[in-house]
Amino acid sequence: MGGFVSFVSAGPGAADLLSLRAAVRLREAAIVFHDSLIAPETLALVPEGARLVPVGKRAGQASPRQAEVSAQLVAAAQSGQKVVRLKAGDAGLFGRLEEEITALRAAGIAYEIVPGITAASAAAAAAGLPLTRRGQVRRVQFFTAADESGGLAAGLSWAALADPGALSAVYMGRRLFPALAARLIAEGLPPETPALLAESLGLPGEHQARHTLATLAKVLAEAPETSAPTLILYGALLED
Amino acid sequence: MGGFVSFVSAGPGAADLLSLRAAVRLREAAIVFHDSLIAPETLALVPEGARLVPVGKRAGQASPRQAEVSAQLVAAAQSGQKVVRLKAGDAGLFGRLEEEITALRAAGIAYEIVPGITAASAAAAAAGLPLTRRGQVRRVQFFTAADESGGLAAGLSWAALADPGALSAVYMGRRLFPALAARLIAEGLPPETPALLAESLGLPGEHQARHTLATLAKVLAEAPETSAPTLILYGALLED
Repeated sequence: MGGFVSFVSAGPGAADLLSLRAAVRLREAAIVFHDSLIAPETLALVPEGARLVPVGKRAGQASPRQAEVSAQLVAAAQSGQKVVRLKAGDAGLFGRLEEEITALRAAGIAYEIVPGITAASAAAAAAGLPLTRRGQVRRVQFFTAADESGGLAAGLSWAALADPGALSAVYMGRRLFPALAARLIAEGLPPETPALLAESLGLPGEHQARHTLATLAKVLAEAPETSAPTLILYGALLED
Repeated sequence: MGGFVSFVSAGPGAADLLSLRAAVRLREAAIVFHDSLIAPETLALVPEGARLVPVGKRAGQASPRQAEVSAQLVAAAQSGQKVVRLKAGDAGLFGRLEEEITALRAAGIAYEIVPGITAASAAAAAAGLPLTRRGQVRRVQFFTAADESGGLAAGLSWAALADPGALSAVYMGRRLFPALAARLIAEGLPPETPALLAESLGLPGEHQARHTLATLAKVLAEAPETSAPTLILYGALLED
């Protein structure tokens, strides 16, 4: 059948954290299916005359179903166009690529993944902090905690998540964080474990704040709901 | 005192996986202290007349001591030059920034970290694989397993590392992998757990191979020693 799709990582918010390879793919694209929350400067790399098709999920708005997005990708690739599927962050990390990849494989369409910078790296860097420390923090973990109904997912390894020797990043965990923090503390992690909140990283309204597990849980339990993308780091962060 | 240092991530081997921001920092640098294994095209971004100072560690060669590198960084920043400290991969992940950051802070020198793409993301992407799968693989971990003497480090959370629900990346784990795999299997991870070997990613001599924990352990136990940078992924990788 032929056809080709590039899954391209837009990186963690700021337009200049795009990779050179991703910029080349966007400049050569004929059609770009993109997530919400992509920097305007990044979308502006797509040439005039190419099509931009928003397929992202935003709170409070209807979004195309996954099967429909997959079908659109397949149809565009089969028409012989240079297709880019642009994902926020690092496409391979919590980017839900598997359904689209499965659809492409079933249709005999080749693809590539252009990796990107993930939010955890960018959030730590923006705070001037490395994620690891030689001989002290040798394991870093990135996770999502919510199941489909918004509760704490079953099957999470609490021994892993409450390990005081690891540095952890919670993706999309804002609403659930008070419950998550309570469980981590119940599993033995000290309430005064450092925690870093990063909201709207690299986007308008960017906000970072240093907390502890306990104080951040309290702040978020009392904060109004928001659709701002949120990343939370916790663990033995390098002190200021 | 003043002065400023940019810790810049060179990304995972291929020169075009550099970020736009990192490219800008290199083009504006007056002096660049760089690791080994940086792509020549990346070093070529540094303007003529700027100084390139190799400070990387390579097997079989003497390398500058960490304290000496930190002192050089401080001296260069204090002289008012635009200083870049260029690290392979994502500088904040296993980049050993903490000693250099501590030295800069002690000298009153400001710094930034420009994040980058880490080898685990790039290795999975090169194999066409996402690291996570919605509802199935919701935790990803990156770790180093060796202590200073080259043995399995104490204090590793085996519950975390042998969790069948996680996707794991072992950094710099080639020599130790047979011992690591044996321990993971003893901790309950099935010997047939998929494993992906990525050597010299994005560099000359790049090599990828799909294995299981058991077969990769056997292959590496019998392979000649090499200083090629090696990343190993294991866990429930998306099947071909």
